[in-house]
Amino acid sequence: MEDSHVQDPIAELITNYNELNSSFIEELDEEPSALEFMRFVARNTPFVVRGAAADWQATQTWTVDYLKDFLGDELVNVAVTPFGNADAPTLYTPPSSDTSTLVFAKPHEEPQPFSSFLTYLTTQELQPPSPNNPHGQQEEEEEVRYAQTQNDNLRHEYAALLAHVPRTIPWARLALARDPDAVNLWIGNARSVTALHRDNYENVYVQVAGRKHFVLLPPVCQPCVAERGLRPAHYRRRRRASSAGDGDGGGGGGGLELVLDEGGGEGEEGQEEVPFAVWDPDRPAENATRYSALVQPMRVTLNPGDMLYLPCMWYHKVSQSCSPEGVCIAVNYWYDMDFTGPLYPLSTFVRSVSNEKK
Amino acid sequence: MEDSHVQDPIAELITNYNELNSSFIEELDEEPSALEFMRFVARNTPFVVRGAAADWQATQTWTVDYLKDFLGDELVNVAVTPFGNADAPTLYTPPSSDTSTLVFAKPHEEPQPFSSFLTYLTTQELQPPSPNNPHGQQEEEEEVRYAQTQNDNLRHEYAALLAHVPRTIPWARLALARDPDAVNLWIGNARSVTALHRDNYENVYVQVAGRKHFVLLPPVCQPCVAERGLRPAHYRRRRRASSAGDGDGGGGGGGLELVLDEGGGEGEEGQEEVPFAVWDPDRPAENATRYSALVQPMRVTLNPGDMLYLPCMWYHKVSQSCSPEGVCIAVNYWYDMDFTGPLYPLSTFVRSVSNEKK
Repeated sequence: MEDSHVQDPIAELITNYNELNSSFIEELDEEPSALEFMRFVARNTPFVVRGAAADWQATQTWTVDYLKDFLGDELVNVAVTPFGNADAPTLYTPPSSDTSTLVFAKPHEEPQPFSSFLTYLTTQELQPPSPNNPHGQQEEEEEVRYAQTQNDNLRHEYAALLAHVPRTIPWARLALARDPDAVNLWIGNARSVTALHRDNYENVYVQVAGRKHFVLLPPVCQPCVAERGLRPAHYRRRRRASSAGDGDGGGGGGGLELVLDEGGGEGEEGQEEVPFAVWDPDRPAENATRYSALVQPMRVTLNPGDMLYLPCMWYHKVSQSCSPEGVCIAVNYWYDMDFTGPLYPLSTFVRSVSNEKK
Repeated sequence: MEDSHVQDPIAELITNYNELNSSFIEELDEEPSALEFMRFVARNTPFVVRGAAADWQATQTWTVDYLKDFLGDELVNVAVTPFGNADAPTLYTPPSSDTSTLVFAKPHEEPQPFSSFLTYLTTQELQPPSPNNPHGQQEEEEEVRYAQTQNDNLRHEYAALLAHVPRTIPWARLALARDPDAVNLWIGNARSVTALHRDNYENVYVQVAGRKHFVLLPPVCQPCVAERGLRPAHYRRRRRASSAGDGDGGGGGGGLELVLDEGGGEGEEGQEEVPFAVWDPDRPAENATRYSALVQPMRVTLNPGDMLYLPCMWYHKVSQSCSPEGVCIAVNYWYDMDFTGPLYPLSTFVRSVSNEKK
């Protein structure tokens, strides 16, 4: 290996990584010290601490009724999609066309009174299946709602709840020598799935209610995820009067239609394409690259009170199961990653070499 | 950068690294805590602590006379070369040939009484230049000697001196959660230069007497150092009777000749070639690759008592200046590097892609 030309450096990279690293997540018995945490940061390796947040006020008190009482009809930003596919590669069929293409579908966002948002989530989740409605869906116009603004919402929109969680994770603050760049609250139900993507943040993810199911891939797996430049699109509420004449825009049966963002008109090569993974580790045969089969995904489910360290630049797909009350609630802390050192430029290098081979 | 094919991913890698990282070494006011050290390990970034070992017994007491008294005529392993080029790419001219090729020259090694070894070093260093001998060299048969066995020699061959240095570096032991794999003593003079190379160790390097001049390149610079497979060779003392008839084997004017290792006979492709950097950051025009000009070498000189953290996989070339007594003495601690995480497989990847482009 030292001096000869290898058959395929990308395949060798992923194979070497797999040989040197476990695909099973490390479970810690208790929260790490700052130094222990820094060792994981240095190795860019995830871990989970079961029950680390079990005694947080959030974990203890955030029932549906409590939250409704606490926040009432305060308006909150809700992401609305037909299939729970906010920020996800989605097939789009232009009006007057039969050919669909993958686009990057952003949700419709609108303010909703918090308590009715929560009622919608739980009703949708808990409605029992019936013979005519085997999956327990609500209505023809059904849509999926998710409070998922990743804009430090727990310190702004939901500031009233902030005192129920620590303002920072002590060992992360000590190790990284900084406060979180964002603290985000996520409230949804099992209909929402966060598509495979990665962030330039060190991430501490805490489950409050319900469960999250993570599929994790290390940064070296960039050549496996089939990153493509996708034209950005967004959902909007269909205007009733004109809906009959429109194509359905891939929006499905709900009252939502998918439209391309302005500036990315028909037939143009989108200058503003969003590079995004289109491979789904749960449907590995579709959109696969020649390297996808080499991936050994790391899977972990967080239960209420569990805490996950998700290192910067790791790909993650996240799906969710609800609490008995019919919601899934989580909080995450984003700490700026360190762009010095070799990891960031090397990750860019992997992408560039991978693009060259396309 | 995100989604287009870049002109040359390797050039982009090195340029990105340079933009994100300083080429000036960080200087700490005092030794780091284990956590502070771990941050440097995570960033794979060197630092120096001036005077950190100034009060070590070694730094305080290891004069030439003291060491001669202490070790006397005990036999020590000495590396002998004509030019101070132990473990270095060296031109070799086979007997009955005019064509020279670069080989990997290992020193002649022999036991020598410690006190006469030290006398040789200091005499060679301190002998004043004269008109017939402008560089102050000793003899026609001059050779360069260096105690440089990197085999944990301070805990074995020089164990008598071990109590004069800490057995481990406390913050490194705490951070890395291990004892050093080797503690090495280096005794030489200004004639010896350690050629550019890298080690799979976290290295804490401590200057005791004289000065060391380091040129450091980060692991991403592999495509710049012109790694070649070199046939291994070694110096041996020339047999007087037969020396007239031999080619000089590139051995120079001394009593040493360079011979290829067994098993790498003439004309054979050496199966046991040593992959080694042949680019020298101090002679950047020679043996350059198309990427060598992108390198921004980090240079640092250690004075007595200074301590350098040299991260794993960093290339380093080391030359030395002597103390007023005519020696250069250093101690280094090698801690096993962590092969988990992305750095090691990504470094292999850089080499493989670089080899593909040759």
